[in-house]
Amino acid sequence: MRGAPNIGIAAAYGLAMAIAISDGDESAITDAADLLRGSRPTAVNLAWAVDRVQTAALAAPHAKRAPAARAEAERIHASEDAASAAIALQGADLLAGATRILTHCNTGALACGGTGSALAVAVELAQRTEITVLACETRPLLQGARLTIWELRRAGIPHELLVDAAAAGLMRRGEVDAVIVGCDRVAANGDVANKVGTYAHALAARAAGIPFVVAGPTSTIDASIASGDEIVIEERAAEEVRHAGGVLLTEADTPCRNPAFDVTPAQLVTALVTERGIASPPTRESIAALLARSPSGDAGP
Amino acid sequence: MRGAPNIGIAAAYGLAMAIAISDGDESAITDAADLLRGSRPTAVNLAWAVDRVQTAALAAPHAKRAPAARAEAERIHASEDAASAAIALQGADLLAGATRILTHCNTGALACGGTGSALAVAVELAQRTEITVLACETRPLLQGARLTIWELRRAGIPHELLVDAAAAGLMRRGEVDAVIVGCDRVAANGDVANKVGTYAHALAARAAGIPFVVAGPTSTIDASIASGDEIVIEERAAEEVRHAGGVLLTEADTPCRNPAFDVTPAQLVTALVTERGIASPPTRESIAALLARSPSGDAGP
Repeated sequence: MRGAPNIGIAAAYGLAMAIAISDGDESAITDAADLLRGSRPTAVNLAWAVDRVQTAALAAPHAKRAPAARAEAERIHASEDAASAAIALQGADLLAGATRILTHCNTGALACGGTGSALAVAVELAQRTEITVLACETRPLLQGARLTIWELRRAGIPHELLVDAAAAGLMRRGEVDAVIVGCDRVAANGDVANKVGTYAHALAARAAGIPFVVAGPTSTIDASIASGDEIVIEERAAEEVRHAGGVLLTEADTPCRNPAFDVTPAQLVTALVTERGIASPPTRESIAALLARSPSGDAGP
Repeated sequence: MRGAPNIGIAAAYGLAMAIAISDGDESAITDAADLLRGSRPTAVNLAWAVDRVQTAALAAPHAKRAPAARAEAERIHASEDAASAAIALQGADLLAGATRILTHCNTGALACGGTGSALAVAVELAQRTEITVLACETRPLLQGARLTIWELRRAGIPHELLVDAAAAGLMRRGEVDAVIVGCDRVAANGDVANKVGTYAHALAARAAGIPFVVAGPTSTIDASIASGDEIVIEERAAEEVRHAGGVLLTEADTPCRNPAFDVTPAQLVTALVTERGIASPPTRESIAALLARSPSGDAGP
């Protein structure tokens, strides 16, 4: 399972299943929730969804805990689907006129509820005008080359694949109109943790004077942390860097650094597009205002 | 053959061989020189070396053209070796105190005369103090993962491999002291064409407040072009992006962009280290002053 929103949805159903098996025993519920919460450190949707299902289950009478947990997981799933649709429409309005859209990693239906976050915006834009999506391959795990390309092809949207390192130069040469990416965790001040490589794209977009837009459901906003400095960045196995597509690229024991995410400071983000509206630019104030709205009746994390 | 300085050296010997075979016939010399000159568009060392050998050969009496060409190729090779040694010493002085050095692509003995350009600086630094070299893998052709790691291991220098997209985040987190890269062509104003991905590292180094240093022999400076905007960027085959280590990573017919180089504007370069001294920062004036010096008795391009 991957993609911050989908990780949340899957964890919600996972906990509901664990609760069904546990027959509503409180310590078993707590253990299962803790296990799920600890499985990935960076995406905040995980803890948010687990908290919601755990709270809903424990608030119910013992015999009703399993159906209460399942109902809450289904509510999370439905609200993430609705969020995707709302993000797509607002993002496409925001990027009207842009035809060469660069994106990173995978943020479509394989990563999020509905048709995704950033990629859902591109899909909506493609229904309005002719666009080309420039998809970064997203080393080390190549979610761009493997998943985003597959989704774009399936959607019939013209696209080009590039190595991550090529994005900045294309922006500098005026060959990109806008960058749109998803997010794994957004701090209260608008700093964005997302797939490693995102930050360099943000720097290049700023230098090129083009919009750098972040799209994600409000479940990705972690109002409990003041800035991106507090976000734990998952460091993954060296094997991922040493290999691509299962093939060894370097010496078998080459030491590696493999941070899976990086933090883009809010000052580099042109707009944060959520299902409750757009924070443009994202700041402590604009994000707080956004979280205070509740168009979907969902109080969020 | 790869690495701008080595491309120049190899082209010099290649033309000398062609002249030996041609028995000094002028049109054959011109044809061979044109063929070599047109083989790669971005590295300026190629045209520079071919021009030198061609001029030396045609200035000699018909019967002496082959030995004159060979002698000129040997002079180029010797001066590039000497340049590497001078760059290593000056670069290491410049970066004294830096212990975590990030580099891109391959700039060691496999790319340049002597022990290289940027990597020669790291090798020299490692003889003075304990350093770790952070080597970017350098997609699509993985010169970092394949060649730089091999050279660092052979030299016994501690190192870590990372995907290109991870460099900016590590710089932002204060985990890099300096970036040093080579160059394929430097314009008269100090703009630097180098392996794709270099520009994003320069942006990240500037944002992190750490030095971004470019190392290369003066044969890499093309005083005939005013700025990097005039540098032709080689666009290579889509196959390189679709594959890594011989394995297909995406759909077999995915359209790709594959610029092999990018241009880093001079304003982002802390220092340009050459065998004739350091332009810090590189500007039209500091580069002209550098080219006016002639410590090795070599008039340069």
